[in-house]
Amino acid sequence: MKFKKLLFIGIGKFALEDSYWEKIDRLTKKKVFVDKDSAEITKELPNTDGVLVNFGVPFTKDDIDSALNLKYIGTLSTAFGKVDANYARQKGIPVCNLAGYSTESVAEFTLAAILEAIRGLETGKQRGRKLNVDESGIKAWEIKDKVFGILGLGSIGRRVAELALGFEADVRYWSKHRKKDADKRGIKYQNADSLIPLCDFISINFAQTKETEGFLNAKRINSLKKNVVVINTAPMELVDIDALIKRLAKKDITFIFDHSDETDPKDLKQLSKYPNCIIYPPMAYITGEARVIKQEMFVSNIEHFLKGTPSNEVN
Amino acid sequence: MKFKKLLFIGIGKFALEDSYWEKIDRLTKKKVFVDKDSAEITKELPNTDGVLVNFGVPFTKDDIDSALNLKYIGTLSTAFGKVDANYARQKGIPVCNLAGYSTESVAEFTLAAILEAIRGLETGKQRGRKLNVDESGIKAWEIKDKVFGILGLGSIGRRVAELALGFEADVRYWSKHRKKDADKRGIKYQNADSLIPLCDFISINFAQTKETEGFLNAKRINSLKKNVVVINTAPMELVDIDALIKRLAKKDITFIFDHSDETDPKDLKQLSKYPNCIIYPPMAYITGEARVIKQEMFVSNIEHFLKGTPSNEVN
Repeated sequence: MKFKKLLFIGIGKFALEDSYWEKIDRLTKKKVFVDKDSAEITKELPNTDGVLVNFGVPFTKDDIDSALNLKYIGTLSTAFGKVDANYARQKGIPVCNLAGYSTESVAEFTLAAILEAIRGLETGKQRGRKLNVDESGIKAWEIKDKVFGILGLGSIGRRVAELALGFEADVRYWSKHRKKDADKRGIKYQNADSLIPLCDFISINFAQTKETEGFLNAKRINSLKKNVVVINTAPMELVDIDALIKRLAKKDITFIFDHSDETDPKDLKQLSKYPNCIIYPPMAYITGEARVIKQEMFVSNIEHFLKGTPSNEVN
Repeated sequence: MKFKKLLFIGIGKFALEDSYWEKIDRLTKKKVFVDKDSAEITKELPNTDGVLVNFGVPFTKDDIDSALNLKYIGTLSTAFGKVDANYARQKGIPVCNLAGYSTESVAEFTLAAILEAIRGLETGKQRGRKLNVDESGIKAWEIKDKVFGILGLGSIGRRVAELALGFEADVRYWSKHRKKDADKRGIKYQNADSLIPLCDFISINFAQTKETEGFLNAKRINSLKKNVVVINTAPMELVDIDALIKRLAKKDITFIFDHSDETDPKDLKQLSKYPNCIIYPPMAYITGEARVIKQEMFVSNIEHFLKGTPSNEVN
């Protein structure tokens, strides 16, 4: 069985390597590419049997209703919040995402960015490049034996916790649901408000939902321990940015994040004024390994659906 | 019991914090400070009963013979190669070093510097600072499932191995002596010449001895796998620098080191021409935690000697 027409919304031809497009060609009679805000979408939907959307592309109830022959929705992302998956379910249409393709990439980045900050590596490299071999003034500290808090113990939070355990940190977490197997491995559950003030390191790993938006509010930001390093590889919607800026001005915390492309440019400009706020482009998820898994999973989700055994169904 | 005179060679007053000097004041009647090449040394030695030397300061057979009342030699370093410890032993004088004070610091730095290199963090930070939120062109890869080789499984090598295990790397080692307990933990022993070409990451953790000098020779450097990241937190005497430069010119390996202060300035200048050679000031051992342990151990070695139970005796 093949699709009659796969409609790719916001997914350009460079999103996948040739070999993956070749595989997709064997799964559909026709491929159509449209921009995410294109008027073409409405025209293309009625006779489309498969829709593929990129990260952040909305696919609404109306879109689903317009797509009279739709059988499959695939996302080229882990997040699928902009797709009306519940409504699709009511219509019997599976939504399949890319679960966990970047878990290792994001978790290793988390440790990388923390270590970079606490070892003065940028200063060190710059000195070394200029043949300045003086280490004086470079402050450094260790992860071992420190309190390392994870907020949100999904797959990425769990992997960050494992890496921190490898460093023999005192790893604790708060998550909506307590996970017994984590406790068994020495990843200790603790109420968020009592945990946050104790932490030397905090990794924010919530998915963005209505419950988690603004989670790191003014009260929690004010309760942060002096010299804490906080890293957020999740959207900045989880953080009260005004309160964060006030705390950064005290120069007694380090805050690292990488969802800078989705952060309000005015906020971003404000944040960039503080040397203790380390801003990365969205690069936590970009390892070569993650890129391979992402493409493989995207194609295999389509294949599995055609075989009648959908994979990574989220609805 | 107290010392009559402690002679500090190459150890300035800023080497320790006040609280540690206060402790030392309770252990000796007098403190004398001299530079390492000072002519004063000969004058001071005959009536000195304790000598303390900084890292790299020579203390020879002749010096020991001149110090007619010498009872104790302490080093403000882990390495003690420039002290004639064997001769001191013959004369019944213990040499006490600072064993392992920087193990965690150096091991965490090793992972930090590797992750910095494989995640493009310097480029990322620079872009973020300029509000450039484009991640394109930043290459990144992961440690998980890669072959991570440790050359020299002493205390630092062992700790690097443990951290790499936390990342679920395939951790292997070569060391002069096979360590059964390492094998049990999944740190696999392998002959150096068969191991080196397999590695995606290599950490060099030998102490510098006549046997290890030049260990990473031209043949071994040529056998390195493409895209390997090699980090040497030990002296560069372990590496054939001419052969390294030839290989760096091929742009297919990354080499990181931090003993730049002891590297021949001509070699250093040559090495600095290659962007794939990352040169740090000597900063692997500098964490605040290591500095505290270092000072505590230095003072407690003196205390233990006076109590008749010398600690960290190396001879």
